[in-house]
Amino acid sequence: MNGMHSAKHKGVNGEMRINQTRLMETIETSSKIGATTNGDLHRLALTHEDVEMRTQLVHWLETAGLDVTVDDFGNMYGKREGTNPELAPVVIGSHLDTQPYGGKYDGVVGVLSALEVIRTFNDEGVKMPRPIVIVNFTNEEGARFAPPLQGSGGALGELSKTDIYDTEDQEGTRFETALVESGYQGKESERLTGAHAFVELHIEQGPVLEQKQKCIGVVQGIQGMAWLQVHVKGEADHAGSTPMSGRKDALVASSAMITALSRYAESVEDLHITVGRQHVHPNVPNVIPSEVTFSVDMRHHDDHMRTGVIMAIRKILSDTSKRNGVEYTLDTNWHGDTVHFSEKVKNVIAEEASALQYDADQLYSGASHDAKHMSQITDTGMIFVPSVGGKSHQEAEYTSAEDIEKGANLLLNVTKRLAKEKEI
Amino acid sequence: MNGMHSAKHKGVNGEMRINQTRLMETIETSSKIGATTNGDLHRLALTHEDVEMRTQLVHWLETAGLDVTVDDFGNMYGKREGTNPELAPVVIGSHLDTQPYGGKYDGVVGVLSALEVIRTFNDEGVKMPRPIVIVNFTNEEGARFAPPLQGSGGALGELSKTDIYDTEDQEGTRFETALVESGYQGKESERLTGAHAFVELHIEQGPVLEQKQKCIGVVQGIQGMAWLQVHVKGEADHAGSTPMSGRKDALVASSAMITALSRYAESVEDLHITVGRQHVHPNVPNVIPSEVTFSVDMRHHDDHMRTGVIMAIRKILSDTSKRNGVEYTLDTNWHGDTVHFSEKVKNVIAEEASALQYDADQLYSGASHDAKHMSQITDTGMIFVPSVGGKSHQEAEYTSAEDIEKGANLLLNVTKRLAKEKEI
Repeated sequence: MNGMHSAKHKGVNGEMRINQTRLMETIETSSKIGATTNGDLHRLALTHEDVEMRTQLVHWLETAGLDVTVDDFGNMYGKREGTNPELAPVVIGSHLDTQPYGGKYDGVVGVLSALEVIRTFNDEGVKMPRPIVIVNFTNEEGARFAPPLQGSGGALGELSKTDIYDTEDQEGTRFETALVESGYQGKESERLTGAHAFVELHIEQGPVLEQKQKCIGVVQGIQGMAWLQVHVKGEADHAGSTPMSGRKDALVASSAMITALSRYAESVEDLHITVGRQHVHPNVPNVIPSEVTFSVDMRHHDDHMRTGVIMAIRKILSDTSKRNGVEYTLDTNWHGDTVHFSEKVKNVIAEEASALQYDADQLYSGASHDAKHMSQITDTGMIFVPSVGGKSHQEAEYTSAEDIEKGANLLLNVTKRLAKEKEI
Repeated sequence: MNGMHSAKHKGVNGEMRINQTRLMETIETSSKIGATTNGDLHRLALTHEDVEMRTQLVHWLETAGLDVTVDDFGNMYGKREGTNPELAPVVIGSHLDTQPYGGKYDGVVGVLSALEVIRTFNDEGVKMPRPIVIVNFTNEEGARFAPPLQGSGGALGELSKTDIYDTEDQEGTRFETALVESGYQGKESERLTGAHAFVELHIEQGPVLEQKQKCIGVVQGIQGMAWLQVHVKGEADHAGSTPMSGRKDALVASSAMITALSRYAESVEDLHITVGRQHVHPNVPNVIPSEVTFSVDMRHHDDHMRTGVIMAIRKILSDTSKRNGVEYTLDTNWHGDTVHFSEKVKNVIAEEASALQYDADQLYSGASHDAKHMSQITDTGMIFVPSVGGKSHQEAEYTSAEDIEKGANLLLNVTKRLAKEKEI
């Protein structure tokens, strides 16, 4: 496998570097497994495309000399032994599944850059005190089976095994059935139980790094969020015979709410408010809508701030309801506090980025990642590389080979440094 | 049939009056045919409930001594011969079908008040020069088979017979099949080919008469309308990782449009703008909406004004699109000019209302009615009675017995006057 790529890549002072050509060829191979004619990648968890990708990964891991194991959620591990096998491993990786008609980079860059890190260590003949484990988590996306992060959540005890096994896809296939049929149901005893640190490289999925002309994001954590649901109740009336002044139009009221929520969100730094789903009743052209339900996805990294934002949202809904003669309810469907990553790992990432002379910026992740669950058991950090135009989960998702190379070199040096740390 | 109701009802000066008790009992009988446990009336065209109602109507018409015929659209006619059978008839009536879970009054009041007019003439032994025809049009509502006004449109040549026969309900049953199975498929030769005048009594289905404390509406015509469709195209992005400032959110843009359209409509007298239907894509809580489609139902009785309103709507959409970084298209799905009713019939209605000392107001109908098609072949007018709270097409639809009585007495006098006119 390493034959034609064995020429060693070096920094200006002869430091160890990853092989960009080999890494991009590996990503290109992944891009063909589940490729659609539209140019996107459709590789949902535990489908035959995912199985084909897993088989390819096993081949790569074994060729790199790693010991491959699989746990009872289908999470895959490739272990490179350390010179002191008693030490807890440094874990690196991400996920290889995609959203429906998703992009080629997403979690793929994280897993295959981890592979490239090991290949580079192998090329250099570098031995580390600590074991290094590459991980590919099952069903990070939650696209086929909901919720997302099932593999990491199950293995790390954050989600119930029974709940995960019983979840069904849209065709009614249970997770457990799909897992057994995939051939990737391993043993509970193979779960990751401890680690010295976890580092996940991922594309940003947002436009911030590109806009700030930074090539590296030192991820501070995963911003907390609330999923709210608003129900607006007005009165259905005839579109032609009801004067404008006497109406209790639930859609006019909801539209005023959405406009006001958007303006409010623009006025608060780092606040994200999105109304992504809306249902109108009865949804007939000539009937004034009597009821509208809409979702509010609200995210901010400051937990106290989010509490205040919910109060502000309630005031906006209340004022707008009064002005429009409608009633409303506001429910919280789900809430999660901000996850703050390890100070130590953040510092290591920032210092190594600086040493590599990569322009780095600190930011919180807007999306959730397996690192969220890993941070419950070990020192965790994430490295972001830029997404062109902020695009993700679609064919237009793109990160340049140069930026991926930088992300992988940073992962290389961070892994090397953490794997040399002697404390258990 | 007339036994217990044969006591004659008189005005203060001994004028002929309808029998409120008999009329309300007749409406009550209708209210039970298709009644649901929720208190609304569910009697869609050509269903078994509609057939049961039709059979009851035949019984009432024949008991009143009328000659009953049915045309090839299932429209039912009950003819009271005039002293001069050569004269064209005065036609009165409406429809007996309802919206899904609709109200008890709607078109029912018009057909059964027409029956009460004939019963009153019979009680009084009044003979008129002109024949009088009661009509019950098929599928006025368009709820089971679209579009509405099929019976009158077909019989009067405004809609194609083939098109009507081929329309299917949601179960795929053709109109023709339902018509044949109902037993109410009559002959083409029975269609109404000419009339001296048509007068339709109907509930207002809006709050104007109630708000103005008027008991009678002299309907000036049916306001023209346009059904527009707006498509807004933005860009889908991740709800958590896309800053507010860089978004092209199709729902935020659409909401601003709907808010602006509603404000604009409030500023123009007699203008109605309703957004009743909206679809959001992809309609997922954590994805910024990329596309929104919404309907615009716009009505105003001034045809020139409507042209100007469409220009104003286009400007609102254009300005809002620019501010929100989205693109839009505006299509006209359907357009109909205002139908102006006969000056003669409007005057007769207004004069007779005045003679009865009923407080009347002039207004345009916001909803469409079979009178729209009838106005193409004869002098046509409509009488509105108040809808409490403006409610219609629902259980809460209500018009008081006193107001129905006044509407029926006005219909009585208008019919009497028109049926005495000697000109052919």
